[in-house]
Amino acid sequence: MTDFEKQTAFILELDKIKKITRQTYLADASRLENDAEHSWHLALMAFVLADYADEPIDQFKTVKMVLLHDVIEIDAGDTYCYDERANKTKSDRERKAADRIFGILPEAKRTEYRSLWEEFECGLTAEARFANALDRLQPLLLNDATDGKSWKEHGIRRSQVMKRIAPIRAASAKLWDFTLKLVERNVAAGNLIDE
Amino acid sequence: MTDFEKQTAFILELDKIKKITRQTYLADASRLENDAEHSWHLALMAFVLADYADEPIDQFKTVKMVLLHDVIEIDAGDTYCYDERANKTKSDRERKAADRIFGILPEAKRTEYRSLWEEFECGLTAEARFANALDRLQPLLLNDATDGKSWKEHGIRRSQVMKRIAPIRAASAKLWDFTLKLVERNVAAGNLIDE
Repeated sequence: MTDFEKQTAFILELDKIKKITRQTYLADASRLENDAEHSWHLALMAFVLADYADEPIDQFKTVKMVLLHDVIEIDAGDTYCYDERANKTKSDRERKAADRIFGILPEAKRTEYRSLWEEFECGLTAEARFANALDRLQPLLLNDATDGKSWKEHGIRRSQVMKRIAPIRAASAKLWDFTLKLVERNVAAGNLIDE
Repeated sequence: MTDFEKQTAFILELDKIKKITRQTYLADASRLENDAEHSWHLALMAFVLADYADEPIDQFKTVKMVLLHDVIEIDAGDTYCYDERANKTKSDRERKAADRIFGILPEAKRTEYRSLWEEFECGLTAEARFANALDRLQPLLLNDATDGKSWKEHGIRRSQVMKRIAPIRAASAKLWDFTLKLVERNVAAGNLIDE
């Protein structure tokens, strides 16, 4: 295969991400969101909210990172963040998926995109911290818009959400302040279980 | 409203793009694609295929352009490219939509994103030419993957597709050569009507 054939094969393979369903509802609560929609939303947020990152970030790198961060779920599936058992095997499943999916690409792009994915997973750079913060904030926005529809269906507690959103604090004081208010509003409304 | 409140209102408003259905099927032919999924796919293609642009392009600008290019369809709806009557009123409907939707944002971002949308519509810069080429190529890839399912349902002719894909020629010799082969393959297979 030529490099171009490998690239178009990768683009077509990634169409499958449109079929990976998440546990978050759209803002109008009509149906669950999928990974392609979620990734589009994060990419948009990455440049609309970039000014609120506490550290300087390379915006384009952050956008590429969020556009690619979930492609491994084509093989590994979406692991619900509050499913403790599934999260134990998540890392192994996702590494195998990354080998196969990024492996479709020619060498240079394979290395670049796989590194971006690993950087996101490790969360040790400014871009990865901001990308992770957005990945935690976006479902909160949708849960807030739907009166906690997904949280209520799964009986989610405030402490579970507080643990999940911790990365936002490391990336943006402004987004963290906003997130805490969202959580309190949803606890007060009975959308999250207070303990 | 503060700038931050306007930005989060914009992000939430744009969730509606996940509900705008296009006339192209996913690669597995299971259902029609929506605008958020389409925009995510174009953004991915913008950096995976950037090397094939005939002119130097600002990749990040191209990515932002394709991520935002369809948000006006929240108000204006998706106009099927082969629907001649609807295309006559498209421009007016879309301009009004742009006023309202980009108008949600604070001044600086409103100006930046609306300009990106207008630049895409006019197609006069290297980035807009490449973005338009991708916007024409992506549904072709999906039609090819589904044995022309959408083309066959609408009785689309080769000449209609040839007119539609013309912008690809202006952006990339490599993508144009590839596109022509895709069209010929689909004419030969009976997926497009030969005249």
